[in-house]
Amino acid sequence: MSSWTLPQPMKRALELAEASAAAGEVPVGAVITRGGEVIAEAHNAPRERHDPTAHAEVLAIRRAAEALGQERLTDCELWVTLEPCAMCAGAIVHARIGKLYYGANDPKGGAVEHGARVFEQEQCLHKPEVYAGIGEAKAAELLREFFRERR
Amino acid sequence: MSSWTLPQPMKRALELAEASAAAGEVPVGAVITRGGEVIAEAHNAPRERHDPTAHAEVLAIRRAAEALGQERLTDCELWVTLEPCAMCAGAIVHARIGKLYYGANDPKGGAVEHGARVFEQEQCLHKPEVYAGIGEAKAAELLREFFRERR
Repeated sequence: MSSWTLPQPMKRALELAEASAAAGEVPVGAVITRGGEVIAEAHNAPRERHDPTAHAEVLAIRRAAEALGQERLTDCELWVTLEPCAMCAGAIVHARIGKLYYGANDPKGGAVEHGARVFEQEQCLHKPEVYAGIGEAKAAELLREFFRERR
Repeated sequence: MSSWTLPQPMKRALELAEASAAAGEVPVGAVITRGGEVIAEAHNAPRERHDPTAHAEVLAIRRAAEALGQERLTDCELWVTLEPCAMCAGAIVHARIGKLYYGANDPKGGAVEHGARVFEQEQCLHKPEVYAGIGEAKAAELLREFFRERR
């Protein structure tokens, strides 16, 4: 029996989530690819950077747009270990990310399948293709460990 | 007869919106105050900065948090000329902005009174006090002019 292997960008996003926890930040990692190539990556860093907008997705989107010299990331894929919040889902819309792959779902803070459901709004200008649950066991385990240690 | 005068931070936000239009960006301006003092200001700049997250509110929040050396802006007020989108409303939640004052409403992209209604979600961790319609005539006029010239 062979087991399904995680796509490389999600493996990398999980490594970034681990680095995030090691830095005392909520463990979330994100990678942006285009045509199989990594364009940008980031982990969560609001504390370190004193920046409430410094979620992994926002940082990765800003880095990818800077690297490509354009504000739209139409042909890009975003891989992130946790369901994006409203801020990050909004940033994904503005960046015109083509495909979104995420790990664990987030009933408390997520805004894709939960709460604000940003992509499902009638006014939403751009809906990425969404693939959920990729690497979710590991992503959720990292989050559980992080919050258990801090209780 | 004396007419009601706009609060100074909203006057400044409208000047920033005009500067935004002059720079070829959608005219939106934002100012963050604390105890009557201006902490940060910004205009919309996604094109100039090649950054899809560079809305006036996000830039002002990032600058205020940097200036104060903390990721939370609990005692701060945000003044912005247009109803915030989902991304910016999410950033306002993460920053714990105390009071939000905005000008024109935005049925197409707004996420306070429209669409994702971020602050009204049950999961929303922080709801600012919201005051809408301050300076809305001027804010809306700037937007209409901008889009009329580009048609």
